[in-house]
Amino acid sequence: MSYEPVPEDKFSFGLWTVGWQGRDPFGDATRAPLDPVEAVNRLAELGAYGVTFHDDDLIPFEATRAERDAHIKRFRQALETTGMTVPMATTNLFTHPVFKDGAFTANDRDVRRYALRKTMRNIDLAAELGASTYVAWGGREGAESGAAKDIRAALDRMKEAFDLLAQYVTEQGYGLRFAIEPKPNEPRGDILLPTVGHALAFLERLERPELFGVNPEVGHEQMAGLNYPHAIAQAMWAGKLFHLDLNGQSGIKYDQDLRFGAGDLRAAFWLVDLLERGGYEGPRHFDFKPPRTEDTAGVWASAAGCMRNYLILRERAAAFRADPAVQEALRHSRLDELSRPTLEPGETAGALLADRTAFEDFDVTAAAGRGMAFEHLDQLAMDHLLGV
Amino acid sequence: MSYEPVPEDKFSFGLWTVGWQGRDPFGDATRAPLDPVEAVNRLAELGAYGVTFHDDDLIPFEATRAERDAHIKRFRQALETTGMTVPMATTNLFTHPVFKDGAFTANDRDVRRYALRKTMRNIDLAAELGASTYVAWGGREGAESGAAKDIRAALDRMKEAFDLLAQYVTEQGYGLRFAIEPKPNEPRGDILLPTVGHALAFLERLERPELFGVNPEVGHEQMAGLNYPHAIAQAMWAGKLFHLDLNGQSGIKYDQDLRFGAGDLRAAFWLVDLLERGGYEGPRHFDFKPPRTEDTAGVWASAAGCMRNYLILRERAAAFRADPAVQEALRHSRLDELSRPTLEPGETAGALLADRTAFEDFDVTAAAGRGMAFEHLDQLAMDHLLGV
Amino acid sequence: MSYEPVPEDKFSFGLWTVGWQGRDPFGDATRAPLDPVEAVNRLAELGAYGVTFHDDDLIPFEATRAERDAHIKRFRQALETTGMTVPMATTNLFTHPVFKDGAFTANDRDVRRYALRKTMRNIDLAAELGASTYVAWGGREGAESGAAKDIRAALDRMKEAFDLLAQYVTEQGYGLRFAIEPKPNEPRGDILLPTVGHALAFLERLERPELFGVNPEVGHEQMAGLNYPHAIAQAMWAGKLFHLDLNGQSGIKYDQDLRFGAGDLRAAFWLVDLLERGGYEGPRHFDFKPPRTEDTAGVWASAAGCMRNYLILRERAAAFRADPAVQEALRHSRLDELSRPTLEPGETAGALLADRTAFEDFDVTAAAGRGMAFEHLDQLAMDHLLGV
Amino acid sequence: MSYEPVPEDKFSFGLWTVGWQGRDPFGDATRAPLDPVEAVNRLAELGAYGVTFHDDDLIPFEATRAERDAHIKRFRQALETTGMTVPMATTNLFTHPVFKDGAFTANDRDVRRYALRKTMRNIDLAAELGASTYVAWGGREGAESGAAKDIRAALDRMKEAFDLLAQYVTEQGYGLRFAIEPKPNEPRGDILLPTVGHALAFLERLERPELFGVNPEVGHEQMAGLNYPHAIAQAMWAGKLFHLDLNGQSGIKYDQDLRFGAGDLRAAFWLVDLLERGGYEGPRHFDFKPPRTEDTAGVWASAAGCMRNYLILRERAAAFRADPAVQEALRHSRLDELSRPTLEPGETAGALLADRTAFEDFDVTAAAGRGMAFEHLDQLAMDHLLGV
Repeated sequence: MSYEPVPEDKFSFGLWTVGWQGRDPFGDATRAPLDPVEAVNRLAELGAYGVTFHDDDLIPFEATRAERDAHIKRFRQALETTGMTVPMATTNLFTHPVFKDGAFTANDRDVRRYALRKTMRNIDLAAELGASTYVAWGGREGAESGAAKDIRAALDRMKEAFDLLAQYVTEQGYGLRFAIEPKPNEPRGDILLPTVGHALAFLERLERPELFGVNPEVGHEQMAGLNYPHAIAQAMWAGKLFHLDLNGQSGIKYDQDLRFGAGDLRAAFWLVDLLERGGYEGPRHFDFKPPRTEDTAGVWASAAGCMRNYLILRERAAAFRADPAVQEALRHSRLDELSRPTLEPGETAGALLADRTAFEDFDVTAAAGRGMAFEHLDQLAMDHLLGV
Repeated sequence: MSYEPVPEDKFSFGLWTVGWQGRDPFGDATRAPLDPVEAVNRLAELGAYGVTFHDDDLIPFEATRAERDAHIKRFRQALETTGMTVPMATTNLFTHPVFKDGAFTANDRDVRRYALRKTMRNIDLAAELGASTYVAWGGREGAESGAAKDIRAALDRMKEAFDLLAQYVTEQGYGLRFAIEPKPNEPRGDILLPTVGHALAFLERLERPELFGVNPEVGHEQMAGLNYPHAIAQAMWAGKLFHLDLNGQSGIKYDQDLRFGAGDLRAAFWLVDLLERGGYEGPRHFDFKPPRTEDTAGVWASAAGCMRNYLILRERAAAFRADPAVQEALRHSRLDELSRPTLEPGETAGALLADRTAFEDFDVTAAAGRGMAFEHLDQLAMDHLLGV
Repeated sequence: MSYEPVPEDKFSFGLWTVGWQGRDPFGDATRAPLDPVEAVNRLAELGAYGVTFHDDDLIPFEATRAERDAHIKRFRQALETTGMTVPMATTNLFTHPVFKDGAFTANDRDVRRYALRKTMRNIDLAAELGASTYVAWGGREGAESGAAKDIRAALDRMKEAFDLLAQYVTEQGYGLRFAIEPKPNEPRGDILLPTVGHALAFLERLERPELFGVNPEVGHEQMAGLNYPHAIAQAMWAGKLFHLDLNGQSGIKYDQDLRFGAGDLRAAFWLVDLLERGGYEGPRHFDFKPPRTEDTAGVWASAAGCMRNYLILRERAAAFRADPAVQEALRHSRLDELSRPTLEPGETAGALLADRTAFEDFDVTAAAGRGMAFEHLDQLAMDHLLGV
Repeated sequence: MSYEPVPEDKFSFGLWTVGWQGRDPFGDATRAPLDPVEAVNRLAELGAYGVTFHDDDLIPFEATRAERDAHIKRFRQALETTGMTVPMATTNLFTHPVFKDGAFTANDRDVRRYALRKTMRNIDLAAELGASTYVAWGGREGAESGAAKDIRAALDRMKEAFDLLAQYVTEQGYGLRFAIEPKPNEPRGDILLPTVGHALAFLERLERPELFGVNPEVGHEQMAGLNYPHAIAQAMWAGKLFHLDLNGQSGIKYDQDLRFGAGDLRAAFWLVDLLERGGYEGPRHFDFKPPRTEDTAGVWASAAGCMRNYLILRERAAAFRADPAVQEALRHSRLDELSRPTLEPGETAGALLADRTAFEDFDVTAAAGRGMAFEHLDQLAMDHLLGV
């Protein structure tokens, strides 16, 4: 069995992933800057189909208009040469010190206005490059102390920002949808919209909720100790899984951005199983950081590993679902019953109350005695994961 | 200054809190059962205004109809004698082994139907006793392994259940609203609707979302490492803070249910500040467990401590907000600017684009250089909290 | 390839594992009690070689002397019939309410004395049954509040207890060694000796440190977010890995006791790799809890899964180490250099200071530029784990 | 009551704390570099008595010998002018990319030798400046993947390094002792010697254990969810609390380095209580980072807040211990009994076995029924903390 990625697999990478220089809170960069054109070329060779970027990944923050145009031109040429796409783009609203207290929810109003303009500018570029998703990670929208941020006022400001951006893309006729990326903390002590749930809830209060979904990242949900496949399932259930960030994380600690498959391998298996069965058709986008111990060769080994692990897990998940023993085990654990409505078609509260078998004549003890047979089922999954 | 609670403070307690016998995963009960009537009497004496219950707290699971009636009668008499109210009730869908795989989302359909009936029965009682909120904690709705629960199917079943219950209370003309209580894990490895955000998002997909809000518990949100006051603020912002559970938790670990004030004291301060300023008018409901080291005297000391700590923090938060030095510090940290809309009245995307001061002429460096003065502000809060 | 366990694999189980009835903090038992004799028989059939127990697992707390003797007799007969061994025993100092504030460190001195006597009594039985290790898990030695326990005094009492027990086994000529089992919390808010490190440090202050080692449990170390294989390696390095408890845990939350392999699968792989290469010759002891969703069939499926997963991982780890590509990758990552002393034989501080190549002439930039090639190495490990 | 620090309070700060420029994993520096001389002057004005440093804080990594001497000279003058002391110094073995895989345990042997030399050089300076403690934080000694580091070999190398350094300070006649600083993770996925316990255990295997103790940091132990005052108590109990790092942390997440008092305030209270009662006479050393939202004024406000909070808590803890009601409550909770040996003077195992009151005649039920009265005691502590 080969695990060589092809464009049809829809693997994409952020420029900032393979381009990460290894600067961390306690250490300086260990790698030289990576030319975005080189990133496009190498990712194409490795089998990816797309590349994504923050504005500042492509165009230095202080660039003049002419420099900006030159950067974009070179990048477009690389895309054309390689056939690579730009399925998603996003704004860097966190690196520059001006955003130290946030962007859309900074206490300083002029910073908020500047953040909107910086975003609109990159939305134009994203649309021009054919992106269909615009990701919004509000990494600096938060606080370290209790009085520093009035959360309800901040949510008002966040809504105001997203409503404006939605108005903008609508008026411009861009085919873009927004995907909000939640994260619980780091770099702020607490970040607004800390989980997939909080983001899903928030977007329901926007003026154009249909333009908004989520961009859940494996490690971000796991930094809150939450089950990532469960979060993805809820986002799918709500029709809001617009994009996602694949990587690895070893439990509740700083944001690790390990290559996909590293960290919680079993969660990765269930994730791939869910994406492949669940009809998710968007990019399989990797947002990881090759460890700063690696040189350039290590960077590409790490990127290749992300895709390889996805393909291995895809194969294993498919075999799991195809196995007749698994199908029998699923029935034994009554997964088929879970898919059946609890009520009869058209059954009302009154009709349920009249059904004595549901309560008065229900044999609670017998029902309590039925084993769920989940351990057998889970061991079958383990066997398939391990290729036994 | 006195910190003696009075009914106007709206303190309420679950029967299961002071009545907890101290059984834990590694130990047997250390206290005798507490008669619900005794609980009502003692809580009234201590200054509470209300008591809440699961059906099985009041009426043993196996009680006959006659026994049930007798239990209810005694309880009503105690309420009348003391003037205590029942602002909230809820269903026990987790203790009996029949719920070992869940209730509204159990794989077994007959268990789901039974759970609905058990809930409807207690809703009748809740309405009869004048409760205005019905809490739903789905503590067993979850899984320990990946294939055991199809999350999207389970959310369909959860929606089906809540839609039916909402239909029921509407048809019956009960004045009840539902408050969903999230929890990330324990007793299941992962629980559905693990945080306030996930619950808020879920209820937007129900048939009658206006009847549904949340019942966030301090410790549950903190078990995911999340900021509880932030979650409460988002629930308020969404108009969905129907009820809440006050207690204490020392970080990410098993569910501790410490008395209010224990655990993260500074978060408790900001919570009380938010509730008191934010217009929350519901009960201040304690859902805690007096540690199993305590005898009966310790139980009441612990219950009294919950209320005392709330009152101390209420006083301190009020003094913080009233202090002119604090008000100046808030302005210095530009909290007033955060409350001001980012856009001018009626300002459109086009108008913002035309404002050169927002981008082209914005002095990023100068803006980046402004200090936020949050440390000074937070130290003022610390001084007020500590009564310095 | 077959993964059928045989006695030579040295798999052992606690009576309390397969015998767990499924009582949890929010739910009643879901399974009937399991006769210890039945446990011995079934575990023998499944391929285990040993069984372990707390005194109260075998003999009910309130048993008379005659009942006690009868229980022991039946158990010994089952051992003889099946050929099963008792490599380890331990004391239950946590279930009975008398231990609610601890045993060896209870504030009440008479409780401490009682705990010592209860332990000595079961040590006699352990010795009689041929156990070589006596485990001490002080699950109740801790506190929920700051003044409740003077930690230094409590450590004095803990030392006093262990010194006495060591004196006792020495005087009796028992061949027993003690293995202290750390755990960070649950059932106490904080437990004394919370990690492998704290236990290793503590035992160095005992009168007979040579009789004391540790019994690290997978989930306990992971409940503190720590790397279990690292802890095992440090215990081995100190010569103190006397025994261990294998199970699974999904991150920082309540104590899950999943079957071995569930939870952090990659950590399980590295653990087996370490145990098998590192010369650990003790039992592979499972301390897990079959989920309360399971009936009796599920219990045995879960127990069998523990052993199966160990054997699969043992095979995969052996293949990993035997692979020439891995050996080359290890050299490429300079693992061979790590095994080489930093100093020349006999090199002193003065000699090092005189070596200009070590500092003055050391090319820091060149050294900083070398990649470690860890990602390539780790992907090889992933491939071997997954059997690709 | 005044909370103005004076030198007798022994407050010290790292140059890297007030000098932190605010660079984090997602953002650039928000503050200009701080001249060490300015740091000394301002800290002296604020009431500190000491300042500490990494070599690279004082002398840029690439400095020539002449530049180095000039930096040291200016610094000494500032110390003399202000009367400030240097109680501790340490080595930066983590910022430069050459240490990306560690220093004393780097796989590359030449990096290890270089790290030793860099350390010895700064030890000379530390001794010259009168420091009595040399801290060793091995922030890069660890790994992100399982095969990248052979932990037992790495511990051998760590021991080799510390043994050499101990030989060096002994031969040189320096009055220095070493304090190992544990941390569970960040910047490495897992760091060696992750907790106070692991470090205490490790140092027992060194050639000159008497020269080694620990330097526990509040946030580091709390990043593993552990109780910091408990860790300090165990370090004291072992005679190994040589130094400590005070700051704040809000639970299990990235390393926050909040000002002292922020984060877990109740733990800070119990810590100060323990230090003041427990005979710790070393510096009260702050290792915090003024949030990057702050400008220079905010930096000094944050530094002043660290000391102020310590002094407030010191006052409150003293009042708690002096309160007769507290003393009675402590007796009621039998803390006096915990301080009494469990055994009679000279009592042997045999004598204990002969004491029927300890077991055969012990009334377990009565003992189990005694309440511990911890909630009352803890509420008294809360009242004192809050100054009620």
